[in-house]
Amino acid sequence: MAQLRIALVQTNPTVGDLSANADKLLAWTREAAGRGAHLAVFTEMFLTGYPVEDLVLRTSFVEASIRTLEESATRLALEGLGELPVIVGYVDRAGLAPRAGRPKGAPLDAAALLHRGEVVYRTAKHHLPNYGVFDEYRYFVRGDRLPIFRLHGVDVAVAVCEDLWQDGGPVAAVAQAGAGLLVAPNASPYEKDKDDVRLELCARRAREAGCPLVYVNQVGGQDELVFDGDSLVVDETGVLVARARQFQEDLLVVDLDLATSDAPPSQVAYDAGDGSTITVDRFVLSKEPVAPYEPVPAPLAAPLDAPAEVYHALVLAVRDYVAKNGFQSVILGLSGGIDSALTAAIASDAVGPSRVHVVLMPSRYSSEHSIGDAEELVRRQGVHSRVVPIGDIVSGFEKEIELSGLAAENLQARVRGMILMGLSNEHGHLVLTTGNKSELATGYSTLYGDSAGGFAPIKDVPKTMVWELARWRNAHHSPLFAMDVPAPIPENSITKEPSAELRPDQRDTDSLPPYEVLDRLLDDYVEKDMGSAELIAAGHDPALVTRIIRLVDLAEYKRRQYPPGPKITPKNFGRDRRLPITNRWREQA
Amino acid sequence: MAQLRIALVQTNPTVGDLSANADKLLAWTREAAGRGAHLAVFTEMFLTGYPVEDLVLRTSFVEASIRTLEESATRLALEGLGELPVIVGYVDRAGLAPRAGRPKGAPLDAAALLHRGEVVYRTAKHHLPNYGVFDEYRYFVRGDRLPIFRLHGVDVAVAVCEDLWQDGGPVAAVAQAGAGLLVAPNASPYEKDKDDVRLELCARRAREAGCPLVYVNQVGGQDELVFDGDSLVVDETGVLVARARQFQEDLLVVDLDLATSDAPPSQVAYDAGDGSTITVDRFVLSKEPVAPYEPVPAPLAAPLDAPAEVYHALVLAVRDYVAKNGFQSVILGLSGGIDSALTAAIASDAVGPSRVHVVLMPSRYSSEHSIGDAEELVRRQGVHSRVVPIGDIVSGFEKEIELSGLAAENLQARVRGMILMGLSNEHGHLVLTTGNKSELATGYSTLYGDSAGGFAPIKDVPKTMVWELARWRNAHHSPLFAMDVPAPIPENSITKEPSAELRPDQRDTDSLPPYEVLDRLLDDYVEKDMGSAELIAAGHDPALVTRIIRLVDLAEYKRRQYPPGPKITPKNFGRDRRLPITNRWREQA
Repeated sequence: MAQLRIALVQTNPTVGDLSANADKLLAWTREAAGRGAHLAVFTEMFLTGYPVEDLVLRTSFVEASIRTLEESATRLALEGLGELPVIVGYVDRAGLAPRAGRPKGAPLDAAALLHRGEVVYRTAKHHLPNYGVFDEYRYFVRGDRLPIFRLHGVDVAVAVCEDLWQDGGPVAAVAQAGAGLLVAPNASPYEKDKDDVRLELCARRAREAGCPLVYVNQVGGQDELVFDGDSLVVDETGVLVARARQFQEDLLVVDLDLATSDAPPSQVAYDAGDGSTITVDRFVLSKEPVAPYEPVPAPLAAPLDAPAEVYHALVLAVRDYVAKNGFQSVILGLSGGIDSALTAAIASDAVGPSRVHVVLMPSRYSSEHSIGDAEELVRRQGVHSRVVPIGDIVSGFEKEIELSGLAAENLQARVRGMILMGLSNEHGHLVLTTGNKSELATGYSTLYGDSAGGFAPIKDVPKTMVWELARWRNAHHSPLFAMDVPAPIPENSITKEPSAELRPDQRDTDSLPPYEVLDRLLDDYVEKDMGSAELIAAGHDPALVTRIIRLVDLAEYKRRQYPPGPKITPKNFGRDRRLPITNRWREQA
Repeated sequence: MAQLRIALVQTNPTVGDLSANADKLLAWTREAAGRGAHLAVFTEMFLTGYPVEDLVLRTSFVEASIRTLEESATRLALEGLGELPVIVGYVDRAGLAPRAGRPKGAPLDAAALLHRGEVVYRTAKHHLPNYGVFDEYRYFVRGDRLPIFRLHGVDVAVAVCEDLWQDGGPVAAVAQAGAGLLVAPNASPYEKDKDDVRLELCARRAREAGCPLVYVNQVGGQDELVFDGDSLVVDETGVLVARARQFQEDLLVVDLDLATSDAPPSQVAYDAGDGSTITVDRFVLSKEPVAPYEPVPAPLAAPLDAPAEVYHALVLAVRDYVAKNGFQSVILGLSGGIDSALTAAIASDAVGPSRVHVVLMPSRYSSEHSIGDAEELVRRQGVHSRVVPIGDIVSGFEKEIELSGLAAENLQARVRGMILMGLSNEHGHLVLTTGNKSELATGYSTLYGDSAGGFAPIKDVPKTMVWELARWRNAHHSPLFAMDVPAPIPENSITKEPSAELRPDQRDTDSLPPYEVLDRLLDDYVEKDMGSAELIAAGHDPALVTRIIRLVDLAEYKRRQYPPGPKITPKNFGRDRRLPITNRWREQA
């Protein structure tokens, strides 16, 4: 056995900002070296950020990634950090000829080992996820090699992210070839309760590989994704030995006692158990174990509980969306209701109340308590506010065109949306929308009205969870929040009956079942993809199933309506070019 | 050699409308039988329509597809059509256990052979396209079998769509196994000039397979895709022998003289030349060649020329989007400029002028000729029109919030968008937007303003092509158009200088280069994915390259801004669930 000190570098890259990410590589490697690490492990595609979507199909982008990697190796050595081996993710290319069905340029989701100014080894992810938010068959070709390099006598294997999630492949090859440690750079997005799934997965793969596993994950918001970090180390029996903090950058330094090896360098192909072959490249960086030393205690951050975790995810998502897209401030409409109150609190916690602007836009149907509750929130949080009554503008439209029923309700929402967009265009604020998942799912939302804006902080939060998060926030604070206010949300906004206030005495329950009933049904239909027979068998009311499925399908169809148009060239605008939003890479750079 | 009469059924299914598609199967099989066909070939996934996107991940949908196939086989026999073998596409499942990385339910892009009331054989596409508009690794698992069935002494092989486009796989297996005919059901979307590419591909694959090839393609608009039909037959040397009409349903009946075979039934695995194996199942439907008969001449439709082809594609896209989504009428804003004039002509040709509503919305900056040109178009086309001046509404906003520059220009566009959306909500018209590709690409478009609407007929048409199409339409008519007007677009709309008229004396050339220059650059940057160095090397002005790349990237980012929000559950709304818009399948059905 021999000791090794591993630094898990859990950081927050920005998609496309190659030079800033390279600067981070240098700074954090310096920090890891300062703490005596023998190996520093960064995350998947750290130099480019993840996900880069269609940027990866541009030759100039892939070239910039490779150049940044090579320059980083040189730079680390010039800065006196060359002795510390570094594993870092980036984008490379497989050098395969163009062929129908193969992504242009044959890009690789690659990871490299940097040492003494050189790129010592380049490997690439084998399993490409192509479900949920992932489209990696569109972007990458598969890697088919696995490095096992000897570091101070210990054989260290490297597998990338999805190679842990799918059976067979690199982990199966490690199990056959044998290694003292398996390290895995990841960019694994947050989902509710994913931390439990992830730990169980790492434990299983460590047992399969027969060695401890080091799991390093990205942290930060990136477009619609939030990465929670939650980097961790499990031993060869699957027991958790170290865990990083969630939703913040962290350098997790862990001392491990690992099996040594003196197997000779080799190149052996193994059946990967998934219909393919993985070639294991075994080579030596350094043979001598490090001299015995006193290990540091392994940090073991306690995971956040359910509402805390979600609230932190939303705060980080908003903060990074604002910062990475170059906004200085946000603006939102405040109705006095719970959705906009929670959104305001998240925004203030994300960027600070001094950068949050709210607009109260009362109509003839707004109740006294709505305006009062909104004003109370402004007092509590200390955000900037202004009042813009919409009555005269709505009357102006009604003078020119006759609208009734739903069309008249939509008009009010659209006038509010236009006011927010106008102020956004004039002053540069990012418009935050305030719709929750339950109402978006069922279509209680106006296209170009309350849905108009650049970022929707609670669009994935069901209404019942909106209340839960509001109560949690009023009872808790975190050092990660930019607003230091104990109970930022007026109690009345939490407890009163929800209403859109678009016609006299309107109540959400006029048209929807109670939210506890609705949210359970939505979860089964949308998240679990259950069909109507299954939903009824699961105990949902048959008439309600029919009604809600119709609403959800109609709402999804309406969302998808914007902005389709026929395609007459290989790439039309909108759906075809799939580019990250929060992207700093520019052709001219 | 033996004769066979093949019916290529080029029809227009509707996604999700299984029972209507099954009715079409019956009706067109009857027509094929009436014309003496020995084999009827329908298109890829005909029974479900194509593409079905995330519907395919629902168990109940896949079950409905399989049930519809089996019922169709029975029904054909009951209707006295059982003796005519039918090849038809549908969705099946592979029966594989759930596994990380495998689409839920392991769906197959399948095709079946129906005969005498039975589903005689089921096969599935081997090559899954995952580029451009295709995401098939998300939806399907690969097929690995190829049927070769003997029909009246001729061995007929079946391969599905992409199996022609990629090297290796089923066509490679046909080349080794030998067949008298290769038939390929397709759902291959239209792109400009694709007819030439497709013919060349079919010719190459026929030579590779060593037998004639029957290529049957879907026709019709489906969401953003348009299928042009263009079904065809090439002989074993690659020479075109028959071709169907473009952009309309067609039954192409062709007599072929084909090699016979008496090879025994077998099941042999062949190296597919793509790292996989294809098992060829050879079996017999009927051995006896048909008695010699007088062949009918093979129809050879002349392909449309470039502007005619694009214009027909746009008309069909609008017509099917309106019909398949259940709209009765469309509405659009008419400015007097060329974009809205062309859009109105396309709409009138698609659904007839009596179902087209236009709104003239003059502002303080609208010129005399704009209003005059718009009125002239109304007279020529006979569409419904009304005038809604926006001056007072804009003033109403300006009384409440101060907006200047771009924010004030956007306000005018948004007021117009709100008027159209209000009238749409009130009367049920589908809003058509009128933006062209050049202005959408460079961001000369207002979010929630002129971009507000359900369908964007010319969003993939560059400005230079807008003029070309307008001139073409004024000089041509087609029996496929619903408007019988010789020159529907006022000459002045075509010849005058383009302007958005959002401020005094505004001209497009104030902020953009001439459209001939711009469109060439956009084509190289967007369609060809060229980087800045390549663009400059290709002769584009360096300063212009920098400026336009910036505009395009910014505009794409702004389009993508709507409506992202953070993801905290496996499926948030918007991007994750990918459902077809024009979809008739309902859980309750």
